[in-house]
Amino acid sequence: MKRVCTRQFRNLTRLRSFGEVREKISRSINHVCLSRRSFHGSACRLGELELTSVRYPHVQRGKYATLTEKDVDFFQKLLPQRVLQDPSELDGYNIDWMRTVRGNSQMVLRPKTTSEVAEILKYCNERHLAVVPQGGNTGLVGGSVPVFDEIVISTQLMNQIISLDEVSGIVVCQSGCILETLDNYLAERELMMPLDLGAKGSCHIGGNVSTNAGGLRLLRYGSLHGSVLGVEAVLASGEIVDCLSSLRKDNTGYDLKQLFIGSEGTLGMVTSVSILCPRRPKAVNVAFLGVENFEAALQTFQLCKGMLAEILSACEFMDQESMQCIQENLKLTNPIKSYPLYILIETSGSHGSHDEEKLNAFLEAAMGKGIVQDGTIAMDVTQRQNIWGLRERIAEGLLHDGYNYKYDISLPLPKLYEIVEDMRQRLGSKVTRVVSYGHLGDGNLHFNVTTPEYNKEVLGLIEPYIYEWTSQVRGSVSAEHGLGFKKRDCIRYSKEPNAVKMMVKMKKLFDPNGILNPYKTIPL
Amino acid sequence: MKRVCTRQFRNLTRLRSFGEVREKISRSINHVCLSRRSFHGSACRLGELELTSVRYPHVQRGKYATLTEKDVDFFQKLLPQRVLQDPSELDGYNIDWMRTVRGNSQMVLRPKTTSEVAEILKYCNERHLAVVPQGGNTGLVGGSVPVFDEIVISTQLMNQIISLDEVSGIVVCQSGCILETLDNYLAERELMMPLDLGAKGSCHIGGNVSTNAGGLRLLRYGSLHGSVLGVEAVLASGEIVDCLSSLRKDNTGYDLKQLFIGSEGTLGMVTSVSILCPRRPKAVNVAFLGVENFEAALQTFQLCKGMLAEILSACEFMDQESMQCIQENLKLTNPIKSYPLYILIETSGSHGSHDEEKLNAFLEAAMGKGIVQDGTIAMDVTQRQNIWGLRERIAEGLLHDGYNYKYDISLPLPKLYEIVEDMRQRLGSKVTRVVSYGHLGDGNLHFNVTTPEYNKEVLGLIEPYIYEWTSQVRGSVSAEHGLGFKKRDCIRYSKEPNAVKMMVKMKKLFDPNGILNPYKTIPL
Repeated sequence: MKRVCTRQFRNLTRLRSFGEVREKISRSINHVCLSRRSFHGSACRLGELELTSVRYPHVQRGKYATLTEKDVDFFQKLLPQRVLQDPSELDGYNIDWMRTVRGNSQMVLRPKTTSEVAEILKYCNERHLAVVPQGGNTGLVGGSVPVFDEIVISTQLMNQIISLDEVSGIVVCQSGCILETLDNYLAERELMMPLDLGAKGSCHIGGNVSTNAGGLRLLRYGSLHGSVLGVEAVLASGEIVDCLSSLRKDNTGYDLKQLFIGSEGTLGMVTSVSILCPRRPKAVNVAFLGVENFEAALQTFQLCKGMLAEILSACEFMDQESMQCIQENLKLTNPIKSYPLYILIETSGSHGSHDEEKLNAFLEAAMGKGIVQDGTIAMDVTQRQNIWGLRERIAEGLLHDGYNYKYDISLPLPKLYEIVEDMRQRLGSKVTRVVSYGHLGDGNLHFNVTTPEYNKEVLGLIEPYIYEWTSQVRGSVSAEHGLGFKKRDCIRYSKEPNAVKMMVKMKKLFDPNGILNPYKTIPL
Repeated sequence: MKRVCTRQFRNLTRLRSFGEVREKISRSINHVCLSRRSFHGSACRLGELELTSVRYPHVQRGKYATLTEKDVDFFQKLLPQRVLQDPSELDGYNIDWMRTVRGNSQMVLRPKTTSEVAEILKYCNERHLAVVPQGGNTGLVGGSVPVFDEIVISTQLMNQIISLDEVSGIVVCQSGCILETLDNYLAERELMMPLDLGAKGSCHIGGNVSTNAGGLRLLRYGSLHGSVLGVEAVLASGEIVDCLSSLRKDNTGYDLKQLFIGSEGTLGMVTSVSILCPRRPKAVNVAFLGVENFEAALQTFQLCKGMLAEILSACEFMDQESMQCIQENLKLTNPIKSYPLYILIETSGSHGSHDEEKLNAFLEAAMGKGIVQDGTIAMDVTQRQNIWGLRERIAEGLLHDGYNYKYDISLPLPKLYEIVEDMRQRLGSKVTRVVSYGHLGDGNLHFNVTTPEYNKEVLGLIEPYIYEWTSQVRGSVSAEHGLGFKKRDCIRYSKEPNAVKMMVKMKKLFDPNGILNPYKTIPL
């Protein structure tokens, strides 16, 4: 890494603050990013976790059938060697990544094809057997694990890339493809996936689509509602709905694929997707900046939005408590001095020297106006990954504290940090830490509280207070994580009764027996 | 205008071809763009047009009620001075812009508020009176005019801008705001609408959303499924569904607003929208290029996609026959020599000299490789508008020929022009012209045939041949115009039976009495 724009800042009074960190930098952030990358199957190693049915006693099992020998025979014939029943193998599918919910499924099915998924669902629908579709199981709201004994349908073996049109950048693949694997495949062809998130090494594209994953570059590449061009899904009845268009434009009838984006597997199971992928940028720059307060963070965002414009690809923030968490729990090093807030800015463009000129001009302006106090720019891929690691590994760092109360809210920008300060005061010394970070460019706050273990009193102090707070300023109680199991009763904080009513009607239309991912998303 | 990059091309053999057009340029394209801008109400001046019920005798009126005196009283009380019944005023609402369909509505209602729309629909639903929501009536598939005697609900008076957050760029407005008016309002605040189309001076944003309008800059700013953040709509029952979020991210439950985007008013009437608007670019360049064949056009697209990358905001094409049409019918002038195909390239960026450098490098490469033969660059706003006028006014030019058979298809890029050559051969001298143009960057072809008047034999030569052709290569029979009345029976060329079945079920769920825009979009 180098000092930020020494040349440009020669006459600015703030120059020294960059100078001071120069020596630190060589010893800085050098851990490999693991994050949620190597998760699957690890949960079971960390000791016993109480069953969801015990922790949430008010949730009652639906009137579904229970698995019989005959059912097992059917699935074993349909999927030879691809039915898991050994308890030692099931834990990784029953427990979520955060270790906050634990189902009691007795069976995991691992189909390879859409028609196998169709056979499974047809059978389950007729037998009234409840199922939960599962991708990389990296969700944060308990949406991808069973609540009771639902059968897990895993997309692990549905990992084929079906086609890629290099001219249009449209990739078609099965839903079990891992996001990072897809992105690596595209990288060789000068393309990239239009989304990126901390869990990229584990999460499946089908899960990303089913949860409408946002991630780190939504600011630039938009939401999956725009970049997903087609979806093939299997309905509860076993009928295959093929909307796997690989056209950029298609206005023939209702855009059914939109219904499967973000409905968390409750309306159908996504089996294949078609996605529009942007060109891979030729030049990427990452800057990590320190600012004195949230007002300055907002000013930084405004300034870079104007000056970096079309090359701005991420504008993330994290607070001092986030930094302390990864320093203490993951032994990462802060590459600059300590500040109340840090901002990560990424540019992605087609012309290195143009991009650098724009970035330098922005930094000069930000420093000149006294908005940004300190900063560093990554000089190569490794340094970029290390800076990104600071931001991406906070979620992992939090887990080391014990229990993590996790909230993912959208708020009007001026309110984004007010809630953090309010909650910090409210919780005081009852908690280990109150940590916040997120996507400044999207108005999306990841708000976290940790305690040594699950604590009902603390939960009672946070909820419903945080939801009411969010609702009062017309925010969203789930910006990108979805509702899953843990937040489904919160839907009314962000959606009007008529809207919820329509959702319930649609759920009944698509899945009359309610076998698809029950107890999730929609309060029935 | 200036010659393209004289300095850069000094050593290239193609230089002369730019030189030759220099003198022509001062006399070039100088008409004001009218296009579909000043349309509304003009249709009635052009003589008699047969009723849709006569031209399409196989379409039967549904079992709806007929307007009574009591109904008229109700509406007059609800909307004093805002009920139109005078036949001289009704034509503009009964006839489409292309003068191809003509309904027989006896009443136009002009509500100002969402609750008035709710009252209207509640009443109509109880009385089984069919309605057609209408915005600027600039649609091209007969989707916004009555087929029989449906009551027209016009959004003309629902034209209030509700709010604008200048930091996030999110505008909230009523559905009757005219696209160009919104864009002008945003221009004063350094923002812009994320879509632009020829009809911008007349079309309403509610119509744009209801038809999922694509337009000229989809390549850069993406589809409305991505940029519309919220929709408020009234269901057939009169219930208001308020999904008017002005948050960039909100994953709480099903994304209902998506259902109203592109469903052509058949699931609900859009009353307000919330849209994410990009920053207005500081620098815009427009180049108009001539190429020898479609292969060269594709190479041009590929090259500019790579070299202009993040600043590319449009890549349009038009063929020689398009140019002849606007030259003959609108007296526009071709600013360069005659070529088989023309390409319009627009860049939008934040840094004038960077953008110019990128554009020059691209043009140098395109000329150097012999892909592009000739071209001109607009030097100011007027010249930019004039070049855009060449492309935008083709639709207007075609109308002067008499009857226009209009197709709007998506095809895999390598097939995009093959269909034009095929049809040209098939139709021979039976037609006035076969004209094609469109959005090269989106794989979207606007294919047009004209004859002096409506001719059944010619129609029989075009359809279903063109739909079958499109279907065989998995294209879309309606890329952006929608299905409306004229294409609804074609849905099966682009959608699987299971998908159509789900659409029919959804229509019945949302509008059990079928009062909303009947005979459109979904074959019932």
